[in-house]
Amino acid sequence: MARKISESTVRRLSRYLRRLRELDARERRSVVSSAGLAQSTGTTAAQVRKDLSHFGSFGKRGQGYPVRALREQLEEILGLTQRWRVAVLGAGKIGSALLGYGYFTQRGFDVVAAFDSDQSRIGLDLGGVRVQPLSELKRTFEDRRVAIAIIATPVEAAQQSADMAVGAGARAILNFAPVKLDVPEGVAVREMDVTLELEGLCYMLTTGGPAADDTE
Amino acid sequence: MARKISESTVRRLSRYLRRLRELDARERRSVVSSAGLAQSTGTTAAQVRKDLSHFGSFGKRGQGYPVRALREQLEEILGLTQRWRVAVLGAGKIGSALLGYGYFTQRGFDVVAAFDSDQSRIGLDLGGVRVQPLSELKRTFEDRRVAIAIIATPVEAAQQSADMAVGAGARAILNFAPVKLDVPEGVAVREMDVTLELEGLCYMLTTGGPAADDTE
Repeated sequence: MARKISESTVRRLSRYLRRLRELDARERRSVVSSAGLAQSTGTTAAQVRKDLSHFGSFGKRGQGYPVRALREQLEEILGLTQRWRVAVLGAGKIGSALLGYGYFTQRGFDVVAAFDSDQSRIGLDLGGVRVQPLSELKRTFEDRRVAIAIIATPVEAAQQSADMAVGAGARAILNFAPVKLDVPEGVAVREMDVTLELEGLCYMLTTGGPAADDTE
Repeated sequence: MARKISESTVRRLSRYLRRLRELDARERRSVVSSAGLAQSTGTTAAQVRKDLSHFGSFGKRGQGYPVRALREQLEEILGLTQRWRVAVLGAGKIGSALLGYGYFTQRGFDVVAAFDSDQSRIGLDLGGVRVQPLSELKRTFEDRRVAIAIIATPVEAAQQSADMAVGAGARAILNFAPVKLDVPEGVAVREMDVTLELEGLCYMLTTGGPAADDTE
C-alpha cells in the first residue's frame, strides 16, 4: 500500500470511486464488472483491472467487483476514511463559488475558514463561513487543524498566500491561480487552471478528436 | 503534426506555453533552457526535451530554446492561433464566476453566451454577457459559431445540457458537474471536478508525498 502510484492512476481511482458511490448509494447495485466501471469512467476494462491489481485482488474472476467492498477499499487507499479540513484563501468570485459548494461536505471535506486581504470582504458570511483577515490565518490554521488550502486569489497574490498557508501548517494546496507555485518538498499541489483545460480541448478540436488515451 | 499525443503531454505543452508567455511578455527573456522550463512547470528537463522533440527540433543543442519562436510554435500545435468562442451553460455560482473571469480573453477565448433554465436568472448581465433561456441555445450556438460549451449546471442537468450543446454544434465540452458525460464520438470532453483534485491531494497527504511523476 505504501508504494507510489502515478497521478493519472490516482485520478482514475477517484473516478472509479465516484462511480462506485453512485452505484452503491443511488442505484443500489451490489456488483459491477470491470467493463461497466470502465465505460462509466472513460477508460478501458483492461486499465481498470490493472489499476485495481496494484492493491491486491478484489472479487473473483468472472464475477465482477463487489461494489460496497471496493468502494470502501478505494476510500481507504485514497485516504478518505477521515474527514479533511479545508480553508479558502481569496473570497472573490471563485472563492465565493467554492464556499457555496455543498458537494464538498458530502464528499468528506469541511470548509472551515476563508481569508481575504480586502477589507470590504472581511466579515462577510459566505456559505456559512465568515471571511477573516490574513492576520488571523496562522492561528486559525493551527487551531482548526487545516490540512488543505485552496488558493483562489488573483495571480499576483497566489505565491504569498501559498507561503502563508504552508507556514501555518498546510501540507496540500489546490491552486486556482494560473501560475506555478513554489512550495517546499513534501507539500502537495494540484492545479485547477480552466484555460489549461480549454487549451487541451482546442488541441482536440484542431487535430479532429480526443488526445490519445493515458493508459500506462 | 497530425499524430496523436497523450492528454498528459498536451497538458504539459499547455504549461510550457503558459510559462513561455510569462517569459516573453512579462520577463522579456529571449532564451530558456529545458531545465528552466522544467523547473517552472513541475517536470524534468528530460521530459521537456522529449515532449518538444515530438514536434521537430527547436533551437540548438546547448543554446536553449528561443522563447518567442517556441511560444508561437506551441500556440500553433495547440490550435491557439485562432480565437475560440465559448458558451457557459448554467449561470449559478460557478457559471457566474466563469463569466466574470477576464483571464479567458487574454488567453484567446471569447465567452459569447450564457444560458440558464431558471427564470430568475434570465436577462441578468454577468460580466457583459446576458443570460438567455435554453430555448435560444440552438440558434445562438449556430449564429455565433460556438465551438466550446462549458457545463456549469447542477449534476442532474449536466447530461441534458451537454446533449443540447452537442445538438447545436459544439464539438468540445468543459464539464464542471461531477458526473461522467456521454457524448458522441468526435466530441471532446474535459472535466473540472474540484473534489477529484482534493481526493488526489488526500492520497498524497496519506502516503506522505506527491504521487509518482507522470513521465512517459
